[in-house]
Amino acid sequence: MAATYDPGSFALLQFHDRLALFESGDDSPRDYLERCLETIASKEPTLHAWVVLNEQGAREQADASTARWRAGRPLSQIDGMPIGIKDLLETRDMPTQMGCAAYAGNFPKRDNAAVWALRQAGAVILGKTATTELGGPHPGPTVNPFDPTRTPGGSSSGSAAAVGACMVPAAIGTQVGGSIIRPASYCGNYALKPSQGAINRGERQATSMSTHGPHAGSLEDMWAVAIEIAVRAGGDPGRIALRGPMQLPIAHAPAALAVMETEGWAGLAPEAKSAFEQVVSRIERAGVRVMRRTQWPELDHFERMLEGVNAMAGAMTAWENHWNLRNLLVLNEEGVSLRSRASLQTAERLGVQGYQDLVERRRLIRNSYALLATGADAMIAPASPGAAPVWSGDVPGQPLAARPTGDATFNTPGSLLGAPVVTCPLTSIGNLPMGIQVMGWPGTDAKVTAIARWLRDNVRPVSIS
Amino acid sequence: MAATYDPGSFALLQFHDRLALFESGDDSPRDYLERCLETIASKEPTLHAWVVLNEQGAREQADASTARWRAGRPLSQIDGMPIGIKDLLETRDMPTQMGCAAYAGNFPKRDNAAVWALRQAGAVILGKTATTELGGPHPGPTVNPFDPTRTPGGSSSGSAAAVGACMVPAAIGTQVGGSIIRPASYCGNYALKPSQGAINRGERQATSMSTHGPHAGSLEDMWAVAIEIAVRAGGDPGRIALRGPMQLPIAHAPAALAVMETEGWAGLAPEAKSAFEQVVSRIERAGVRVMRRTQWPELDHFERMLEGVNAMAGAMTAWENHWNLRNLLVLNEEGVSLRSRASLQTAERLGVQGYQDLVERRRLIRNSYALLATGADAMIAPASPGAAPVWSGDVPGQPLAARPTGDATFNTPGSLLGAPVVTCPLTSIGNLPMGIQVMGWPGTDAKVTAIARWLRDNVRPVSIS
Repeated sequence: MAATYDPGSFALLQFHDRLALFESGDDSPRDYLERCLETIASKEPTLHAWVVLNEQGAREQADASTARWRAGRPLSQIDGMPIGIKDLLETRDMPTQMGCAAYAGNFPKRDNAAVWALRQAGAVILGKTATTELGGPHPGPTVNPFDPTRTPGGSSSGSAAAVGACMVPAAIGTQVGGSIIRPASYCGNYALKPSQGAINRGERQATSMSTHGPHAGSLEDMWAVAIEIAVRAGGDPGRIALRGPMQLPIAHAPAALAVMETEGWAGLAPEAKSAFEQVVSRIERAGVRVMRRTQWPELDHFERMLEGVNAMAGAMTAWENHWNLRNLLVLNEEGVSLRSRASLQTAERLGVQGYQDLVERRRLIRNSYALLATGADAMIAPASPGAAPVWSGDVPGQPLAARPTGDATFNTPGSLLGAPVVTCPLTSIGNLPMGIQVMGWPGTDAKVTAIARWLRDNVRPVSIS
Repeated sequence: MAATYDPGSFALLQFHDRLALFESGDDSPRDYLERCLETIASKEPTLHAWVVLNEQGAREQADASTARWRAGRPLSQIDGMPIGIKDLLETRDMPTQMGCAAYAGNFPKRDNAAVWALRQAGAVILGKTATTELGGPHPGPTVNPFDPTRTPGGSSSGSAAAVGACMVPAAIGTQVGGSIIRPASYCGNYALKPSQGAINRGERQATSMSTHGPHAGSLEDMWAVAIEIAVRAGGDPGRIALRGPMQLPIAHAPAALAVMETEGWAGLAPEAKSAFEQVVSRIERAGVRVMRRTQWPELDHFERMLEGVNAMAGAMTAWENHWNLRNLLVLNEEGVSLRSRASLQTAERLGVQGYQDLVERRRLIRNSYALLATGADAMIAPASPGAAPVWSGDVPGQPLAARPTGDATFNTPGSLLGAPVVTCPLTSIGNLPMGIQVMGWPGTDAKVTAIARWLRDNVRPVSIS
């Protein structure tokens, strides 16, 4: 584990910088993989980022990739990239156990659409990364790579931790509330939560606000993974896939950014607020107008529309999942935690009409958000309400802790709006990472990534001790 | 098998007319089930409508329902209704084999959302009905209940045939092209293909134009099944569920209907055209204005937009399914027919950009259709281009027949538009049924059903020998 974390100097693992060496033979995907496996062997006993590792299969895939690079015929820019797959997604060569005892041994022997596309692109499917139970609030075994007493965030706990620990250059996560952007923030990752529908979710179409997206050690690899999936597997059925250049979009200097406060603003830790405000100052000094809700009535209206969205989004997702969770309980009631089962009460209290009312309310919130595109190039906000909190497990005899993997309050709006979000590891608080997120409007994933690149290249990271 | 079929006198099985008798004890769901089982025992050896029958489980469910009716506490108006489930939908007590050798023995032990809702409403889940392979063009074993040399239509072959043979009062089908409305037409059913998203498809969210809907012996039972599912399982994630009264909507006399010709008009058999035009004449005599494309430029524009939609919709669905079909072939290449595998070529020729272009084209067609709502209450058309065609199997050594379960050309627009469609068995051609379909605009399922009720009650059926 890193003793200290400095966002200005900490180097995550990258892949895009090796391609010329693969071509020349000075490095190879097999050697790259072996270095990853060494890091995993060293750190995994503490980190618990992986639930299954397919080392033998990965070596075979890496050897095949090495041969392709040597022959000058790689399948893509991510040919040979070792990648982790969140254990909610099906993989034909590894079980899919979803962090849930009721799915122990579940092995459907088929690939999720994104996994299928990654294989087509030559990526090395190294293993399954730990998820919270069913992608919900109940934590898995993973710890934070920068402090093992803290959560890595959830639900993409293993993907974020594996990237933060430099085990792999990228890993696939999923988000329905804050499950990509929050763990990426806590683990110092770059990550993309794409526009709703922009990356084909394959068999995982059951909820209206979930997305699949990459965690990565660099914006370059983040974008490469996303676009290589999208050009092969497309978007969700009926939706337009992620669009943009095949390499990281060139930096886009925004004219104006707007600060999104969310429901979390009042509870934002003073150090986190201080770090964020210093980032804002540096953005302004770089010549960008930063809009606040006090200056812009439409932004203030949008913020007022966001009041209550955490409960609202949670209830909608609970409803969308409830018939399937009921199925699981018929099969294996003891195999699902009490924390996950609590969503049934939320769902059944809501009911079909209550759900539909929330679908309509969501439409109003999206309409309110759409207006802001006239006055800002993107929104910015902390990617989490601070650094990763301490988590040491539930206390027997005490009520279950409310948010063991941290608070998604800064992430829920992006999910609810179906908006693209990129987080960059631009701050640290007490030697622990906290991300800064850039959020755009649905379909503008490439522009959001281009603004994130501008931030990375033009705004010096902020450390608060 | 019926020797002749007359749409004016042929009586299908009904359930809604038994409820008072269940309450009084003069009939019971168990007795009703036994009568269904007798019909099945008599006709199934020729019909092959079912792939699995759970007779013991159904008897237990029917006994429990009988007890609820006796106690005056039925769970719903369909408590005790024996119902067939198309074998594409998962059921926790029966395998789900999808008419595909590669899924032989597949038994996920969970319920599809609609099946889950039907159980909540007390329906008796009697068995799985035969489907074409994976819901595609490759036929299953089922024959037409009115002539065993003919197809029952597809892909909801078993559901349509079981209802047409009076084995059950209702069965669940699915449609992505013409898979509910066409077999319902060929088998003399009433059926609803709901608005896109209006009935939760559960685990089957992989395509953008598929829906789940009821086949039934009456409009009353058709509507009851649909609304009882919708109030429990809702619509697809993020969509508004089927809305309307809990019983069949009252008849709605339309002011104006518009004839939809589709790509199939030029090839419509003379007897089918004659039957349809007689229905139109009777509608006009009942005081309804019937609009034709020659009279209405916007309708003519819409018809021109429909040129090529069969190939277009087929290619879109092929693309949406291709990654999953590729998965299946990795697992069991011999377990998928050549007819089904042909869709891979279509998909891979299309590619992600071609698919997205078609999504945009679909939007334009939907926009063109939306304009027609200003001038007509609904569209009417034949539900199939005639009665069921003869099908006696592929000829060894010859190319595979093109459309062994009939032609979906009159159904594709409804699927492509995401529109609600109800078919009524209002005509016969040579003693075989042909349906008349009513199509509305997305979200108007109840109104379309109310217009279908008006047609049923006010337009005398037409027989052409």
